[in-house]
Amino acid sequence: MNLILTLRILGALLLYLAGTLLIPIPFSLYYQDGVATSFLFAALTTASCGGTLFYFCRSRKELSVREGFGVVCFGWTLFALFGALPYIYSGAIPSSLDAVFETMSGFTTTGSTILTDIEALPKSLLFWRALTHWLGGMGIIVLSLAILPMLGVGGMQLFKAEVPGPTADRLKPRIQDTAKLLWGVYLLLTSLETLMLMLGGMTFFDALCHSFATLATGGFSTRNASVAAYDSAYIEWVIIFFMFLAGVNFTLHLQALRGKLDTCIKNEELRFYSWLTFGAICLLILFNHTSGTYVALTDNLRDSAFQVVSILTTTGFGTADYELWPVITQYILVMLMFVGGCAGSTGGGMKVARVLLLFKHAQVQIFRLIHPRAVRLVKLGKRPVDNEVLAGVLGFFALYIGIFLIASLLLAASGMDLVSGGAAAIACLSNIGPGLGSVGPVDNFAHVPAFAKTVLIVCMLMGRLELFTVLVLFFPSFWRK
Amino acid sequence: MNLILTLRILGALLLYLAGTLLIPIPFSLYYQDGVATSFLFAALTTASCGGTLFYFCRSRKELSVREGFGVVCFGWTLFALFGALPYIYSGAIPSSLDAVFETMSGFTTTGSTILTDIEALPKSLLFWRALTHWLGGMGIIVLSLAILPMLGVGGMQLFKAEVPGPTADRLKPRIQDTAKLLWGVYLLLTSLETLMLMLGGMTFFDALCHSFATLATGGFSTRNASVAAYDSAYIEWVIIFFMFLAGVNFTLHLQALRGKLDTCIKNEELRFYSWLTFGAICLLILFNHTSGTYVALTDNLRDSAFQVVSILTTTGFGTADYELWPVITQYILVMLMFVGGCAGSTGGGMKVARVLLLFKHAQVQIFRLIHPRAVRLVKLGKRPVDNEVLAGVLGFFALYIGIFLIASLLLAASGMDLVSGGAAAIACLSNIGPGLGSVGPVDNFAHVPAFAKTVLIVCMLMGRLELFTVLVLFFPSFWRK
Repeated sequence: MNLILTLRILGALLLYLAGTLLIPIPFSLYYQDGVATSFLFAALTTASCGGTLFYFCRSRKELSVREGFGVVCFGWTLFALFGALPYIYSGAIPSSLDAVFETMSGFTTTGSTILTDIEALPKSLLFWRALTHWLGGMGIIVLSLAILPMLGVGGMQLFKAEVPGPTADRLKPRIQDTAKLLWGVYLLLTSLETLMLMLGGMTFFDALCHSFATLATGGFSTRNASVAAYDSAYIEWVIIFFMFLAGVNFTLHLQALRGKLDTCIKNEELRFYSWLTFGAICLLILFNHTSGTYVALTDNLRDSAFQVVSILTTTGFGTADYELWPVITQYILVMLMFVGGCAGSTGGGMKVARVLLLFKHAQVQIFRLIHPRAVRLVKLGKRPVDNEVLAGVLGFFALYIGIFLIASLLLAASGMDLVSGGAAAIACLSNIGPGLGSVGPVDNFAHVPAFAKTVLIVCMLMGRLELFTVLVLFFPSFWRK
Repeated sequence: MNLILTLRILGALLLYLAGTLLIPIPFSLYYQDGVATSFLFAALTTASCGGTLFYFCRSRKELSVREGFGVVCFGWTLFALFGALPYIYSGAIPSSLDAVFETMSGFTTTGSTILTDIEALPKSLLFWRALTHWLGGMGIIVLSLAILPMLGVGGMQLFKAEVPGPTADRLKPRIQDTAKLLWGVYLLLTSLETLMLMLGGMTFFDALCHSFATLATGGFSTRNASVAAYDSAYIEWVIIFFMFLAGVNFTLHLQALRGKLDTCIKNEELRFYSWLTFGAICLLILFNHTSGTYVALTDNLRDSAFQVVSILTTTGFGTADYELWPVITQYILVMLMFVGGCAGSTGGGMKVARVLLLFKHAQVQIFRLIHPRAVRLVKLGKRPVDNEVLAGVLGFFALYIGIFLIASLLLAASGMDLVSGGAAAIACLSNIGPGLGSVGPVDNFAHVPAFAKTVLIVCMLMGRLELFTVLVLFFPSFWRK
């Protein structure tokens, strides 16, 4: 890896972050919450570090795959570190580790929080929390739809007939074009949701923060009780609708806006995602009904739908304490935690397309046993999936389970119990937010031991960057030239 | 599938089972436990059913792959059904479902029991319990080393350069030759262990029953407290040694007896299996020591080694209640539950070779990202692993996790809690025996709801027959000609 070039790009990214750190200042001045200077100092610190890197690291080398991995991985890490400065400078989060946890949770759109009293936070910091989600979501869209496919990683390679070579001249214009269009969609959906939430009685501030958290599938709320605080069926259905949209591949939104609705309807991943959502909601309603958890069907439908969509899209907003529901519904939610949103969405997890391919692969394997001489390929849409890609998907699945197990092990070693540790690991690895046990939907991560918090920070980053992007850095041959 | 031919072979298998049902009668007469007639009636019932099938179903067709699947899957099921007759006829296990659970647990060498007071059982029934293990173990050795590779399934295909076509004339002599040699090894090891356990003060009866359960990696004991009842370090170390051997590929035992020790030492699966055992024991000793669970290092070593080997080889004997140990050690044991023994051993689980290949595959995937132009293949020993075989391994892993999740879900639906349900599912799917929670090492499966018992019976069968063998039967195209 060319370190100088990587550092230069990281410097540029920090300068961009410094700019975004100024955005909450008007909010701070308007609400007179007294933390405007903290943002200013955070922006200055970030800008000076970024500027130094950008100015002193000059390289004539071309950008290659390895620098791509370095920029993505270290970029996200630096954002979490420097983005934590406003919390630390203002004293709102006294522990630096907690502040970094909160910011990493923001930028990776996880939504796990260490705050015990969210509403006590100054308004502009609440806005910054939501903004980290939204910026993280923007990053993920470009990452998953434009950058990762060129590096040969990520769920989107499943849909590419050929992956273009990662040379700098071809890379730049494509990323920029794609990014602009997709960000347009992202901005449009965010504005729409903000408007609709305001129509339901939310203040502009709350509506904006919740829209940021929804479209990024983040899950940070401005209220202690999360979305349950509003106790409004209208607001919940609006959020369910937009969470569902945020879990869809953003190129499909683009197609839909261009009027190509049949392309969307025919999309196999979207279909599977819709059926999965529908099926899980039906099951939850059934078990919540038979167990007597809900008497009124409307309440049952509303809470079941919210929890399924919130977990499957890896948003993590809460309207009900599903730990009071029957064990079977909790199992279903845990299984959805592994699945996550569609490839190319802001959702985390293993991605619907990968799970779909796993099913198809198993089916073809069994078919081949019965018909040893027949030829049947795994297909997605109508196109056969390349063997290399399939091997990648299967490897990803094995690695995902492996990292989940290792993380659970480390959390258990730090003293967490079996259920809480496992749930915390998958909640962070799949970028969801709440888990089960002591990190359930009405709890938070404040009490988690420091070592466990560090493990979870790494989990959030690994899950968000689709594992391989982070893992390559641990190979000595990555650093050699 | 040719049903007539399948039924004829199943008839022959039942006649063989009827013969083995007579073996406990001398024990019954010697101990005068009054259940000799139950065995006689069970043998007669089985023989008449088997004889009818064998006599009336005549077919001139040749044996093909499909009948192979049918015979293996239905054969094991019929053994569990007819093998349960002595328990039912004698009234020792009043519920038929419980009796079938116990017998399936025996023939699949799982070792999960529904008995609350094992020592109250008549001696000859205790012997039958152990014998079902031993016969199951014999079946598994032939199955995994001779039959499954010809059907194109199972862990052993990883080691085969070419799988011969499954025509009847080539199949028969090879199975018979291989079987005789391997059963010789199996018998030799069983005799050796019986002798060594008797030297430690066990009665011949107890020594024989425990040897049966050890070599088959079963886990049924004749005592309520399992191996802990003897409270003898010598006996425990003997059992540890033979459990470890039972988890090794039986063709390697054959090689060792032929003096080819270097082949064994160079075997990559055996090495990985040994390191895994060693590493897990070290970790358990460490955590048991630091948590203050054990003061004396000798006790710590003895209990840690016993539990690791017992779980990894999927035997399931108990000498300590690991639920009182720190959570991290329980996590390690749960992870070992998924791994299981070597391919071609009597152990269950996913098999060490598959886990080894998963690691290697992930490593190669990451290597390819860093060096997109380099060619590196996944190797086992010094031979590159065929892409088809690798896809099979990865598919198996996905399916294993999938079935584990579905089983856990069904157990949760039947009312079991999260930890007990999940642990019961993996304990039965990997053919181990005890799990965690309400089915932990000092508990049993008596209290498990009837529906859950049925699910667990299916899990035991699926795990034992390496999933695919059972799953093909659910495909309509399997039944068509």
